[in-house]
Amino acid sequence: MSTAISAHERVALSLARQGMMNHLDVRLLSAVAGRVELALPYGDKVTQQQGGFHGGAIGALADIAGGYAALTVAPEGMEVLTIEYKINFLNSLQGGELRGIGQVLKAGKRVIVTTAEVLHIDANGQQTPCAVMQQTLTTVPQTY
Amino acid sequence: MSTAISAHERVALSLARQGMMNHLDVRLLSAVAGRVELALPYGDKVTQQQGGFHGGAIGALADIAGGYAALTVAPEGMEVLTIEYKINFLNSLQGGELRGIGQVLKAGKRVIVTTAEVLHIDANGQQTPCAVMQQTLTTVPQTY
Amino acid sequence: MSTAISAHERVALSLARQGMMNHLDVRLLSAVAGRVELALPYGDKVTQQQGGFHGGAIGALADIAGGYAALTVAPEGMEVLTIEYKINFLNSLQGGELRGIGQVLKAGKRVIVTTAEVLHIDANGQQTPCAVMQQTLTTVPQTY
Amino acid sequence: MSTAISAHERVALSLARQGMMNHLDVRLLSAVAGRVELALPYGDKVTQQQGGFHGGAIGALADIAGGYAALTVAPEGMEVLTIEYKINFLNSLQGGELRGIGQVLKAGKRVIVTTAEVLHIDANGQQTPCAVMQQTLTTVPQTY
Repeated sequence: MSTAISAHERVALSLARQGMMNHLDVRLLSAVAGRVELALPYGDKVTQQQGGFHGGAIGALADIAGGYAALTVAPEGMEVLTIEYKINFLNSLQGGELRGIGQVLKAGKRVIVTTAEVLHIDANGQQTPCAVMQQTLTTVPQTY
Repeated sequence: MSTAISAHERVALSLARQGMMNHLDVRLLSAVAGRVELALPYGDKVTQQQGGFHGGAIGALADIAGGYAALTVAPEGMEVLTIEYKINFLNSLQGGELRGIGQVLKAGKRVIVTTAEVLHIDANGQQTPCAVMQQTLTTVPQTY
Repeated sequence: MSTAISAHERVALSLARQGMMNHLDVRLLSAVAGRVELALPYGDKVTQQQGGFHGGAIGALADIAGGYAALTVAPEGMEVLTIEYKINFLNSLQGGELRGIGQVLKAGKRVIVTTAEVLHIDANGQQTPCAVMQQTLTTVPQTY
Repeated sequence: MSTAISAHERVALSLARQGMMNHLDVRLLSAVAGRVELALPYGDKVTQQQGGFHGGAIGALADIAGGYAALTVAPEGMEVLTIEYKINFLNSLQGGELRGIGQVLKAGKRVIVTTAEVLHIDANGQQTPCAVMQQTLTTVPQTY
């Protein structure tokens, strides 16, 4: 009988505690070891001056997609902290929703490197690349 | 008699159109040619899982601080588009508010390079470095 | 009868003009539209203080792998200029040689975004990830 | 009577061991706690296809300027390892020499964040900004 927490539960528990992501109605779509997918719907809370998704929303989604991918490979009792990331914006889009897909590239003892891509999906299911990110994280003891 | 729009008006007009920044109660503190300062207050809308400011909020503030600094030097009738940025997180903080200070490093014909720093200010006015960003933008015709 | 220059010729012609890359004995392994692979051998000219490949050599290889991938999709008569790149170092290695593989992620009118990975290959053909890079370039008229 | 090694000696000892930097005739100009300045002369070994300084040489200089700034604040017996950096190229130049100036932004227990700027100096002493870098390093036990 195992009591180990699954990657999905681990990410879901942390996500539920993020005021900002709840506020932006971010949903966890899937989380397995080394890969996490999240969704962020369009709306007034995430627009820039021309009505497209705000870079800040895209960046936040990429950040947590990569960060939660890292969390799925972090030792138990640890959580992850973003040291830095770099993001390129590829297309500006509005409506529909964004998908953020984070993947672990290297899980070192002290440093975890991830990549994330953000895709836009319109009402017809049409996908367009929106952003790509490269990110570095470290692990710290969980304090809650 | 000049009718030229000031740097401050130019930034304020664009900021007023950003759903996300209005939603996060971001305020424009100052905008002169090549330098812009903005404030983002603490609250439920910007927290991560441990109650600190969310990296997504810090990144969004840095992005627009650098972006609006770039806007102050862009030719009239043009606005700016973030190509990419890279951000390092220095300290995790809660309460008080964040200040985002963007500055233009190089204003080329096609590419503008900026830096931004994000500072935390607590209830007693104590300042702590929170993040530093390096950003690349391009100019595009304003469509609104 | 076509006189169009192939992607391979185009990259080879530029590479032959790069004093630094000749000096480091960099070889072009393949170049097709959107993808270029180069090799950099180990030796005294590329070591750091512990005898491993120098980050400067790894960065230079990644930079030109991404840059030459971009060149293969740039309009005729144009060459590419690196605006910026971001590189993560994954493992420190010595001996053997490095492979730099650049790929185009988005070829816009003004901005080209690429990624590159650098692999280490030892004497037995064993491959180890060495670095990953995300890069932004622009096109400028060729002047030579 | 102190036998502690100075920041300058510490950097000089490491630099002398870097095959690549010796090969490129890089010179240490100054090293104090948190700040290091290096010079890289122009020549065939550092050119790109148009005769300007190669991005690879500029990146390598920025990398070690930031890295050696970090070394001056690392605990005794430790050396530094670049986790990642991001560099923006501001101007393409030839002749004269490059100066790389690295500075520590934050010296944490596990992670050191630095910035570096690269300046070009022509035969008349005229200075032009060449590149800016933001870098993350970690400390590891010295093994030589």
